[in-house]
Amino acid sequence: MASQQRIYTAALIVIGDEILSGRTHDKNIAQVASWLQVQAIRLKEVRVVADDTDAIVEAVNTLRARNDYLFTTGGIGPTHDDITVDAVAQALGVPVIVHPEARAILETYYETRGGLTDARLRMARTPEGATLIANRYTGAPGIRCGNVMIMAGVPSITAGMLDALSGQLEGGAPLLSETIGCWVGESEVAELLRETEKAFETCQIGSYPFWGEGRTGANFVVRSVSAEDLAACVQALTQGLEATGRTAVAGGI
Amino acid sequence: MASQQRIYTAALIVIGDEILSGRTHDKNIAQVASWLQVQAIRLKEVRVVADDTDAIVEAVNTLRARNDYLFTTGGIGPTHDDITVDAVAQALGVPVIVHPEARAILETYYETRGGLTDARLRMARTPEGATLIANRYTGAPGIRCGNVMIMAGVPSITAGMLDALSGQLEGGAPLLSETIGCWVGESEVAELLRETEKAFETCQIGSYPFWGEGRTGANFVVRSVSAEDLAACVQALTQGLEATGRTAVAGGI
Repeated sequence: MASQQRIYTAALIVIGDEILSGRTHDKNIAQVASWLQVQAIRLKEVRVVADDTDAIVEAVNTLRARNDYLFTTGGIGPTHDDITVDAVAQALGVPVIVHPEARAILETYYETRGGLTDARLRMARTPEGATLIANRYTGAPGIRCGNVMIMAGVPSITAGMLDALSGQLEGGAPLLSETIGCWVGESEVAELLRETEKAFETCQIGSYPFWGEGRTGANFVVRSVSAEDLAACVQALTQGLEATGRTAVAGGI
Repeated sequence: MASQQRIYTAALIVIGDEILSGRTHDKNIAQVASWLQVQAIRLKEVRVVADDTDAIVEAVNTLRARNDYLFTTGGIGPTHDDITVDAVAQALGVPVIVHPEARAILETYYETRGGLTDARLRMARTPEGATLIANRYTGAPGIRCGNVMIMAGVPSITAGMLDALSGQLEGGAPLLSETIGCWVGESEVAELLRETEKAFETCQIGSYPFWGEGRTGANFVVRSVSAEDLAACVQALTQGLEATGRTAVAGGI
């Protein structure tokens, strides 16, 4: 059915000098990628950009136009280097406002924590027209503005915001995958992989080599939106690998 | 001196469906970022793109034009999904050739490993006019083509290629940094951070909050190409933090 074949796509912008300097190892790419798989939304592209308004605006405008959803992580705290909200508003061509609901959330949260200062009030600022994404850990909410989801940079907080968004976004046919592992150098079966992929038009086969126990192996990941084609392709690849005299390990090594 | 102030920049393209699906957690962004810091080259932007020729070509042409150096990781193995060399060649507008030196390296490497098959010979293909980047682990070299450095996706092999490139690229004034840690909510010192950064024009201050031991803290990273300005800014920020009655921890928490 056509409606099942619609592919929904997303992009992610990771914002922060600390990732580009190597100081902080990003964890949000993998986390957002895995979450999107479950939502049946395909992550098409990720960009990591500096705390720089022009860089953020360019990335936001390019990626929101060509994807169903755009996520950002980072740069929504209370300090001067947190410029994501202003940059996204500039990209969308809307003013920044203090969101009444966000302000109320922060007032409650900081009531027993020293009160809502000017710096903390920065975290209630959103592009005009936004709705909020709950943050059960520190009060300060994420922000949804059209198809742009503005989320925290601290991975545990991002995780909470993703939880709050689970099931809220329309997804399409999920991309299914199965993995077959084999103790074989990938170059030895390159022709088999190519021919198998060609025989199953709706499937893609990724080849991921590794080294262990003093020998070379590879995991082959077959992906398809069709469960039937996926099963047939996996079967063909398994038979092809075993025809070379090797054992194909379902689920991967 | 003017020559010391020249900033050299780089971008990185991480190529691979396995990163975008969440199956593989990227390690090359952090590794390339840290290596570039030592080379006194500033990483300005990272893109993660799919195994898709159009996506790679677009990213290569955008990023090589606006940076001194462009690095790619992934997609240079022997299988059908390894399309990086072809995509970079297309972006550069040059044909793909079998590089004689790369072929010789692979012939030697595979002499005792089953010989140089057609699939393995794929790893000797380069854009015309390229030079090679040594790979001491598996023979198959990285590729340098103008300002584009094509590297492996497997992090340990990428590391070896970065070693081979160390000291080979012209860098500029290194971006120096110092970290100060403090058990303080960043929102409580947001004004101090903003004022301190304003007072030291050549410095940037990043604020990175964390939670531990049941309380909130933050590390403040001051960055500058001027050692003198950096030291003065760190001193001012340290004094400002201690004026609030807290301890500033040199080196961070």
